[in-house]
Amino acid sequence: MKKVAIIGVGITPFGELWDDSFREIGIKAGFEALHDANISSDDIDAIYVGNMSAGRFIDQEHIGALIADYAGLAHNNIPSTRVEAGGASGALAVRQAYFSIASGMNEIVVVGGAEKMTDIGDVEVNDIQSSAADQEWETVFGATYPSLFALMARRHMHEYGTTREQLSSVAAKNHRHGSLNPKAQFRREIKPEAISRSPVVSDPLRMLDCAPISDGAAAVIMCDMGIAKKYSEHPVEVIASAQASDTLALNQRKSITEMLATKIAGKKAMEMAGIGPADIDLAEVHDNFTISEIMAVEDLGFFPKGEGAKATLDGKTTIGGDIPINTSGGLKARGDPIGATGVAQIVEIVEQLRGKADKRQIKDAKIGLAHSVGGTGSSAIVHILGVGQ
Amino acid sequence: MKKVAIIGVGITPFGELWDDSFREIGIKAGFEALHDANISSDDIDAIYVGNMSAGRFIDQEHIGALIADYAGLAHNNIPSTRVEAGGASGALAVRQAYFSIASGMNEIVVVGGAEKMTDIGDVEVNDIQSSAADQEWETVFGATYPSLFALMARRHMHEYGTTREQLSSVAAKNHRHGSLNPKAQFRREIKPEAISRSPVVSDPLRMLDCAPISDGAAAVIMCDMGIAKKYSEHPVEVIASAQASDTLALNQRKSITEMLATKIAGKKAMEMAGIGPADIDLAEVHDNFTISEIMAVEDLGFFPKGEGAKATLDGKTTIGGDIPINTSGGLKARGDPIGATGVAQIVEIVEQLRGKADKRQIKDAKIGLAHSVGGTGSSAIVHILGVGQ
Repeated sequence: MKKVAIIGVGITPFGELWDDSFREIGIKAGFEALHDANISSDDIDAIYVGNMSAGRFIDQEHIGALIADYAGLAHNNIPSTRVEAGGASGALAVRQAYFSIASGMNEIVVVGGAEKMTDIGDVEVNDIQSSAADQEWETVFGATYPSLFALMARRHMHEYGTTREQLSSVAAKNHRHGSLNPKAQFRREIKPEAISRSPVVSDPLRMLDCAPISDGAAAVIMCDMGIAKKYSEHPVEVIASAQASDTLALNQRKSITEMLATKIAGKKAMEMAGIGPADIDLAEVHDNFTISEIMAVEDLGFFPKGEGAKATLDGKTTIGGDIPINTSGGLKARGDPIGATGVAQIVEIVEQLRGKADKRQIKDAKIGLAHSVGGTGSSAIVHILGVGQ
Repeated sequence: MKKVAIIGVGITPFGELWDDSFREIGIKAGFEALHDANISSDDIDAIYVGNMSAGRFIDQEHIGALIADYAGLAHNNIPSTRVEAGGASGALAVRQAYFSIASGMNEIVVVGGAEKMTDIGDVEVNDIQSSAADQEWETVFGATYPSLFALMARRHMHEYGTTREQLSSVAAKNHRHGSLNPKAQFRREIKPEAISRSPVVSDPLRMLDCAPISDGAAAVIMCDMGIAKKYSEHPVEVIASAQASDTLALNQRKSITEMLATKIAGKKAMEMAGIGPADIDLAEVHDNFTISEIMAVEDLGFFPKGEGAKATLDGKTTIGGDIPINTSGGLKARGDPIGATGVAQIVEIVEQLRGKADKRQIKDAKIGLAHSVGGTGSSAIVHILGVGQ
């Protein structure tokens, strides 16, 4: 297997992008990444696109071909592959691209992630998000995406004494980080007390526990490390990629206070990289709800089970803390355009490892981890990136 | 790159499967393939799933995780990847699985394709099919999937003198083949005159020019050829895989009487296999409309441009002819559950190369080709299979 590098990144502002269509944001992120990598579209061998539900959000399937076309790559007739795994769709695109280069099949690949969620009504958005859970055993009975995570939060509180104040500390920290990120959907701090007083969505989760509905796109250019130096003085290396599945429905799992798929994918990725949690300088994790970040930092081994919430309240996961989590603002504050999210995580890690994260910069960051979840944890994908040699 | 074998195939009957849910048909096909390959689910390293639009057909995204779960593979937590490229979704899953084995990443992989299209109304089905074309430049103005292919048919008639009688000969031949396939949706012959008199859908295309709306699933087990003999006395080898893109909208193409993506993917696949069209014993091509098969047999090089329709009327593409096309009955008669179609084509080629196609058997079949199209030709995927050594 060849070593794989990231030589370019691009990202649109996340938010309610009324003036841009799906294809426009996809192309903006892609061009920014091509420009950053200093390559032309003629150098590209293939495209991988992460997208969850454009068929329902904008009446358009066949997103792979669309992106190839609107990126001006249709004249090269290069293959374009759309992948989907709910909230992990963007990470899945990165993973497929990684293997296509590691195997020697492709040299240079564009990975794009995009979602346009605000062109339809909020109720329908909720239906679509919930379609990553189990339609026959959960959503058909009225379970929504937030309500399934509320079950996990309530059980986590019961088993580990996790508190309202601790949940709020996750969102407050991510809003603080987001305030430093010019591409974030929400660029202002929110006091923990305001989070704890925000309207209940599904008890115990409140509005400010939930990631927002967002439009946005992100892209990365990946290539064989053997040629990366031609394009970039400081290529970032993808040193591990791992993926795991779990049951689609929550009721089939032994525990709902952990995500087994995250534990397995995290463990495999660290084995592949030959490192442990203590070697990681920063991580972007899947905080679609505050409880999700707490479970993630536990399941990835940054903190023992049951201690993720306290660690967050104690400031261990903030910029400057032991293990900074979601320096971009995370899904909560940077925004969560579903298919773009996993790619946006990679963009943030690359900027950190390049030392270009400005006010969010983690000093001497050498190794970063990105973690994405599909559904309520039925898919998890972990990538580990390092400063290239 | 390692050699890749197919050691097991499974397929449900195609049709209006009122008694089976999406997950049931997916699992039936998968279990049949596992049984055929004589392996247990514990041997599987990964799953790839082709599905176009379960989000809209059955309110369920995250089909990769769903299939992993319902195949009983969630306890192994193995990675599952859903891919989508409109009508080429199934072929795209085969292709991703092929590369995952050729690269050495996986040893044994299940590929599934499935779609459940009859649980909603026909008008909505038409909307969904059309979402593989260009939403902003075609379907929003009222263009439907059949109407776009009708434009191609009319222009083909204008340029090459293709006739109504010739179009009907495609469907009549595929229904004749389908009558020999116990899994086909339509298992009776239809006279060409009846096809020519069927109701107009979009002039010049009539009802019996169009593939039906179908439910169904198909699965194949693929593995490293180095271990294939452990499981199968007669493994079939995947000797080539190629994919190409073209513009999403018809109006952007230089010609609408050919599919450039098909030409490029076909040429690349034959180069990879080191063969030409004359070396191929049979082919499954994407006959979602009669005109599509005519363009496909020309674009793949079986007949010169403009002569595909006459060749079909002359019987050259029938079982026993020069190059038998769609011995399964094709999309027209076997049925077209979108995500399953590309996998079902592989199932048919494997059965033919094993000499197990019963009344449809092509004598001494050694090399077969499968061709899938997404949208109106904006994605094309070609696989070439051969009798394993």
